[in-house]
Amino acid sequence: MQSHHAADSVRPTIALAMGDPGGISSELAAKLIAQDDIRAAARIVMFGDMRILEDGAKVAGVALDIDTVGTEDALPARTPRPVLVDLKNLDPSDVTPAVPTLAGGRFATENFRRALQYAAAGRAHGVAFTPFNKKAMRLAYPGYDDEIRFIADVLKLDCPAREFNVLDELWNARVTSHIALAEVAAAISKDAILRNLALADACMRAAGFARPRIAVAALNPHAGDGGNFGREEIDIIAPAVREAVERGYAALGPYPADTVFVRAKRGECDAVLTMYHDQGQIAMKLMGFDRGVTYVGGFPFPICTPAHGTAYDIGGRGIANLGATRQAMLLAIRIASQAPSSAAARPQGRAAS
Amino acid sequence: MQSHHAADSVRPTIALAMGDPGGISSELAAKLIAQDDIRAAARIVMFGDMRILEDGAKVAGVALDIDTVGTEDALPARTPRPVLVDLKNLDPSDVTPAVPTLAGGRFATENFRRALQYAAAGRAHGVAFTPFNKKAMRLAYPGYDDEIRFIADVLKLDCPAREFNVLDELWNARVTSHIALAEVAAAISKDAILRNLALADACMRAAGFARPRIAVAALNPHAGDGGNFGREEIDIIAPAVREAVERGYAALGPYPADTVFVRAKRGECDAVLTMYHDQGQIAMKLMGFDRGVTYVGGFPFPICTPAHGTAYDIGGRGIANLGATRQAMLLAIRIASQAPSSAAARPQGRAAS
Repeated sequence: MQSHHAADSVRPTIALAMGDPGGISSELAAKLIAQDDIRAAARIVMFGDMRILEDGAKVAGVALDIDTVGTEDALPARTPRPVLVDLKNLDPSDVTPAVPTLAGGRFATENFRRALQYAAAGRAHGVAFTPFNKKAMRLAYPGYDDEIRFIADVLKLDCPAREFNVLDELWNARVTSHIALAEVAAAISKDAILRNLALADACMRAAGFARPRIAVAALNPHAGDGGNFGREEIDIIAPAVREAVERGYAALGPYPADTVFVRAKRGECDAVLTMYHDQGQIAMKLMGFDRGVTYVGGFPFPICTPAHGTAYDIGGRGIANLGATRQAMLLAIRIASQAPSSAAARPQGRAAS
Repeated sequence: MQSHHAADSVRPTIALAMGDPGGISSELAAKLIAQDDIRAAARIVMFGDMRILEDGAKVAGVALDIDTVGTEDALPARTPRPVLVDLKNLDPSDVTPAVPTLAGGRFATENFRRALQYAAAGRAHGVAFTPFNKKAMRLAYPGYDDEIRFIADVLKLDCPAREFNVLDELWNARVTSHIALAEVAAAISKDAILRNLALADACMRAAGFARPRIAVAALNPHAGDGGNFGREEIDIIAPAVREAVERGYAALGPYPADTVFVRAKRGECDAVLTMYHDQGQIAMKLMGFDRGVTYVGGFPFPICTPAHGTAYDIGGRGIANLGATRQAMLLAIRIASQAPSSAAARPQGRAAS
């Protein structure tokens, strides 16, 4: 008998994938599911290996108080405790600390795939994961450009999905992401700005913002200084902001990149839409390295992870800061709780052509 | 009889130019020269108009305790008080608040020119100025690209000069500055990185750092992710850092742009060399908008100003924060005090060809 998430009508179900075993991911996972408030707020269904999780619990110095099943079809219908679907997919003797390995990549990709499929089947309202190592992911899955590509492959969905960074109540969306800086300017268009602004608006509404105020960053130093150092502000970005306002979005700017986050810090906006990756990441990591969350928005359910990486340099020492992982889980829970059902959050998804 | 700065053997002489009259510059100037510690640390020779300075003092709520002369040749040889060289170059009735004007630009460019010439004649050890408005400067001096161009024109020197941003003990140097983002990648070369690193090192030694640790930022997101999002790190930046280390510089990196300032904040380096303007400015303004200093290095004497602008929105209200202006003056004094004489700091300057 399948246990459906409707079995627990109060708490949303979050599928949690264990990340790369070579760094701090396993200790973060063990520590996270030991937190009383997290356990109370969500029904957690975890995907990974019991032996690796036990090692993580030892490092973190926490006791594992969970149920374990061999397959997700055997999940107990009602339990207050997190459940591990023990995939028995990584022998601890195959873990090489602080190195990206094929074994580690296989473990993390399988856990993530199973968590995504579980949510896609309507059995969880959201997905969270502890950090992956991109090199290891590529060893296991050569087409692994980034999380979005992998998720789209697994879900067989071609969604206009994007990575957002969330720090407390401030969001950061971006028009371009994992491309060379040399290619950024050519990728900025009015259409791209409007699409990303609309997606940010939709994702933030799904997270409970009634009418998110989105400040748009300029591309060039001093916002181009009236056309002296680039014309994108005059020709593309300012017209896009004007059109967004006409369409009813609470869009602001464009503001010079070096003051837009000072404005954000003062509370003048709820989000900053940046033109490229580092424009936002420099600010967000500086403002809260230990609390930043990466949220993949645009798929039928929220997918969240801490913004930091696998921290190979401090793995196994029990000193990893849980802050960002907690925030990632809390954001997934928050968005999952807003949606009446996972199906209702699905209008943006369409089958891949 | 000329009064030479040697007349006051303890305090260096700083030439202070009054900036744009439409914003907060005049009140900052009046407030600055009223500070006891600043007056004690430097002999200040100010260039501007007494009527404008009096208006600034009224707004700032400070009393002017200064000497006034009509020409710098009439300067008193010894006085504990700041001296204004009253150029009588702006009637208060010609000041339009909160607007860049030709009158304001003429006032600021003349004050700045006189201050620079005064230092170039060996009569001051450094120059400071309250904020300019770039539009107004261009109305008065159409060739005004930025401060560096103007200074080079006035001094008739073709120096390898650069703008540095200084926040407390952290410096930010950059390889490219006021150019469009689309042009940045093509302007990054090993030679440009090494030249700017060497200049940063020299300027920081002049400011008292024995062996400045300079962290070099990457260009692309995730430092290019092993070549997946750009190859500049592999082909250009990492080799430049290696060569800098071989040449004896304390160069570090390259580090991803979104973590290099987190490292700097932790004290891992004394400076960050960024590849483009906003890469550093986003971080520096976020870390200390009210204390950041712009230092023009590479000319025969230090030239400092607050990193913020004319703040037209709060001019005349007496609420301007003096913090960055104080820091600018203190940095000019610190560098001026290190140099045995202004002539000794001149090796980098060469006559324009």
